[in-house]
Amino acid sequence: MNRILILGGGKSSTFLIDYLADQASSKNRHVVLADLDVELAKRKLKGKANTEAKALDIGDENARRQLIKEADVVISMLPARMHPQVAVDCLEHGKHFFSASYESKEMRQMEAQIREKGLFFLNECGLDPGIDHMSAKKIIDQVKANQGEILSFKSFAGGLLSPECEDNPWKYKFTWNPRNVVLAGQGMSRYIEQSKLKYIPYHQLFKRAVKVSFDELGDFEGYPNRDSLAYRKLYGLENIPTMLRGTLRRTGFTKAWDVLIELGLTDDSIELNPPSTSTKRDFLNSFLPFDPERSVEEKLSSYIPDMDFPTFEKIQWLGLFSHDPLPIYQGSPAQILQAILEKEWTLKADDRDMIVMQHQFEIKENNSTRKLISSLVVKGENSDHTAMAKTVGLPLAIAVDLFLEGEIQLSGLHLPIIPEIYLPILDRLADYGIHFDEKVLEN
Amino acid sequence: MNRILILGGGKSSTFLIDYLADQASSKNRHVVLADLDVELAKRKLKGKANTEAKALDIGDENARRQLIKEADVVISMLPARMHPQVAVDCLEHGKHFFSASYESKEMRQMEAQIREKGLFFLNECGLDPGIDHMSAKKIIDQVKANQGEILSFKSFAGGLLSPECEDNPWKYKFTWNPRNVVLAGQGMSRYIEQSKLKYIPYHQLFKRAVKVSFDELGDFEGYPNRDSLAYRKLYGLENIPTMLRGTLRRTGFTKAWDVLIELGLTDDSIELNPPSTSTKRDFLNSFLPFDPERSVEEKLSSYIPDMDFPTFEKIQWLGLFSHDPLPIYQGSPAQILQAILEKEWTLKADDRDMIVMQHQFEIKENNSTRKLISSLVVKGENSDHTAMAKTVGLPLAIAVDLFLEGEIQLSGLHLPIIPEIYLPILDRLADYGIHFDEKVLEN
Repeated sequence: MNRILILGGGKSSTFLIDYLADQASSKNRHVVLADLDVELAKRKLKGKANTEAKALDIGDENARRQLIKEADVVISMLPARMHPQVAVDCLEHGKHFFSASYESKEMRQMEAQIREKGLFFLNECGLDPGIDHMSAKKIIDQVKANQGEILSFKSFAGGLLSPECEDNPWKYKFTWNPRNVVLAGQGMSRYIEQSKLKYIPYHQLFKRAVKVSFDELGDFEGYPNRDSLAYRKLYGLENIPTMLRGTLRRTGFTKAWDVLIELGLTDDSIELNPPSTSTKRDFLNSFLPFDPERSVEEKLSSYIPDMDFPTFEKIQWLGLFSHDPLPIYQGSPAQILQAILEKEWTLKADDRDMIVMQHQFEIKENNSTRKLISSLVVKGENSDHTAMAKTVGLPLAIAVDLFLEGEIQLSGLHLPIIPEIYLPILDRLADYGIHFDEKVLEN
Repeated sequence: MNRILILGGGKSSTFLIDYLADQASSKNRHVVLADLDVELAKRKLKGKANTEAKALDIGDENARRQLIKEADVVISMLPARMHPQVAVDCLEHGKHFFSASYESKEMRQMEAQIREKGLFFLNECGLDPGIDHMSAKKIIDQVKANQGEILSFKSFAGGLLSPECEDNPWKYKFTWNPRNVVLAGQGMSRYIEQSKLKYIPYHQLFKRAVKVSFDELGDFEGYPNRDSLAYRKLYGLENIPTMLRGTLRRTGFTKAWDVLIELGLTDDSIELNPPSTSTKRDFLNSFLPFDPERSVEEKLSSYIPDMDFPTFEKIQWLGLFSHDPLPIYQGSPAQILQAILEKEWTLKADDRDMIVMQHQFEIKENNSTRKLISSLVVKGENSDHTAMAKTVGLPLAIAVDLFLEGEIQLSGLHLPIIPEIYLPILDRLADYGIHFDEKVLEN
C-alpha cells in the first residue's frame, strides 16, 4: 500500500486533498494530511476511507522526519521557503517529492543526489508555474516537431473574479497572497520584442499594459511580469525574437493601481507610525503636496494629470477619501494599503473566482505564418472551492497519481516541461474542465 | 610639539592640508599626511616646514596604528566607511579624532569610552554636514535665547557651477561623488509642513522641486532630501510645524533629470549586459516601448507627456540620441548612465564650482513674525581648489586648530551644534569669505 503524505491543508490544498482522498480506497493507498491545525486536516479529509489527519508543527524536526520516513511520496503545500528543508528530509529517507512552487536554488543543488538515489522530485506543477509550462510547452514541442519556428510568444495569466461576481469598481478581489499582489512589479521588468531587449521601471509598468481579449469574457489588461527572459531557456526558445509574460487584470484596473503607485502607497521601504487618530483620508493626504486651499480630492486630481472618473471612482471605493480610521497604525505604506485592501477585496462565501490564461503565438511553418491563440478559463464554485485551488492543486494531485500508477516513469529533478509529464497531466485535466481553446488566425 | 595626522590626501583635502601645513612651523606643530600615493601627499604638502608625507595602505593595520600612535590628533579624510576603524584605533591609543562625515552608529557606541578617556571626537564638521549645522544652529539658539519660536525652517544646499562656467544645458558638472548624485533621492523622502507629515516617492521627487532664489545669482530649484525629520531632534526643534531640507540645482535640471528617472535610467537593481555594438541611442531605446514606425526621439516625446525643448535639449546634449558607443557594457542602468555622465560632466582645469546654501526661517518673536533668509555663496578657484574642497576642509582644519590652541575645550563625542564649537569656527570661516548674508522680511 502506497503512503502519500500531504504537508499543509490550507486553502490551495482543497482540490488536491479531495482528488487523492477520493481514490485512496479504490487504489489501495493511504493518505496522510499533516497540518498545524489537526481539526482543519480532519475537516478537509471528511473521514474518507484510508485517510488520516495528523497534527504537525513543521519546525518539529523529529515529528516531521518521522512522518516523511513513513511515507512513499511527499507533497509539500507549505509556503515556498519551507520546501528545501522538506526536500532534504525526502532525500535522506529516499522519498519522492512534489510541489507547485518554483524550483529553488537549494533544490537544484540536490539534483545529482536525487538522480543517484533514483528518486523523482517534481516542482512547478500547479497553475503558474505549472499549467502555463505544460500548455505552452505542448504547443512549442509540436511546432518544433514540424520544423516550424516560433516568432513570438506572449503569455498572460490572472486570478480574477467570475464576471457575475465582479461587484466592485476594481472588478478584483484577493484570490492569492495579498502581499504579493500589492508589491507586484516592483523593480525593473524586462522582456524582448522583435529582438530588442526592453526594460520597464515599476513606475511605468502599469502604464504600459496591453489589451488582451477572451471570447465571451471581453477585454482584460496585461502588464509585463518581472522577468520574461528566463523562460526562453526553459522552453528551448533561446533565439525567439519576441517573448513576454504578463499578468491580467480587468480593464481599468491598471490605470487606478498606477495612481496608488504614483502616490507612493505601494512603497515598502519606510516604516510609518501615523497617529492613532489618522483616517484613511489623512493617509492619502500625507502623499499629496501641502495646500490648505484645496481638498484632498482636488489635489489628487491635479497630481494625477490624466485622472478620469472610472479611476477616481476606484480610489473613492477603497474609502481613501473617507474619515474612516486606518485598519493598522504601523507599517510600510504597502502594509497599510494591504490592510485597507484586505477589508475591501475579500471573497464573500458565495463569490466565484476565475482563472484566465492566454498564450499568443506567432508561428512560421512551411513558409507561412499564423497566429495561434490558446485560452484557458476556469471558474470557481465558491470561496472554498476556488478556481485558484483547483488549478493549483489538480495538476499536482494528478502528477502524484500518474507517478504511483507508473504512467510517469522518471527519476531525477524535473519540471513539467517534457511530454512524458505534461501530456498525461493535460489529458487528465481536461476531464475536470481545465482545457485550452485554440483559435488560429492565418496571415 | 603637537603632531597632526591627516589620513587621505584626495581632492577634498586640499584646503585642509594647506591651512594646517601653512601654520605648522609658526605654531610649532608637525603635520603628517598619509596617503596610499605618497607622491600625491608630497605634492600636496609642497615641502612646507614641519610637514611630512607618508605612504599608507589603510588596510595595513600595523602601519596605520603606528602612525596613529605617534600623533596627537587624527583627521580622517578617508571614505566614510573607514572612519569607525580609525576611531577605534584613536580610542585605543588615546588620540583625538576629527572628520567631516556623518556620525556613525559605530561611533555612537564608543561614546562612553571617548568621554571616560577625556578624548575629543568631532564629526560632521565639513560643509553638509558641517556648515549647515553651524549656521542653522547659531540662528536657532539666538531665537531660543530671545524666547522666540521657529515656525518653519527650510534649508537648501547644492554643489554647482559658478555662473560664468555654466557651459552646458544642464548647468551642472560633478563636484561630488558621482554615484551619490545619480542615485540621489531613491526610496521615499519625508518632511513636515504645517504639522502634516509628507511623503514623496522617488518617481515624484523631482517633479516637486520648489523655486529657491539668491540675490545676484537668480533662481534655483530645490528638491527635498530623503529625511528632513531627523534634524528636528538634532537641532532641538522637536515640535517645529514645518521642516524641510533640500538639494539645489539650476532651474530646468530637475525636469530633465526626472525624464531619466521616468525612463528607468537611474535604476540600480538590475544588471545589464548590452551587446558590444550598442550605442547610447540603443541604451535609451531599450527603456522605450517597441514601435518600428517611430524614431527614438518621437517615442521619448510621447512617453514624457510634458516634454519641452529645454528638457529635450538636455537629453540630447548627453548624446543619448547619438550612435556613439556606450562607455561601458556591463552594469546597472545607473552605472551605465553614470559612466555617460562622467564623460560629459567633468570639470575642466579652469572651471570654477560654486557652493550655495540657503536657510529660510519663519520666526515668531514678541508677537510678530518675520522671515529670515540666510544665504551662503562660495565660488571655487579652479578644478583643484574647488569651493567644495574649501567648504568641506576649512571648517575641519579650523576646528583642529582651535582645539590645539585650547579655544575649544571639550571632551566626548560631538557635532558642531553647540556654541562652544560653532561660534569660533564661523568667526574664523568669515575671514576666508565663507559667511552668510542675512535678509529679514517683516510680515
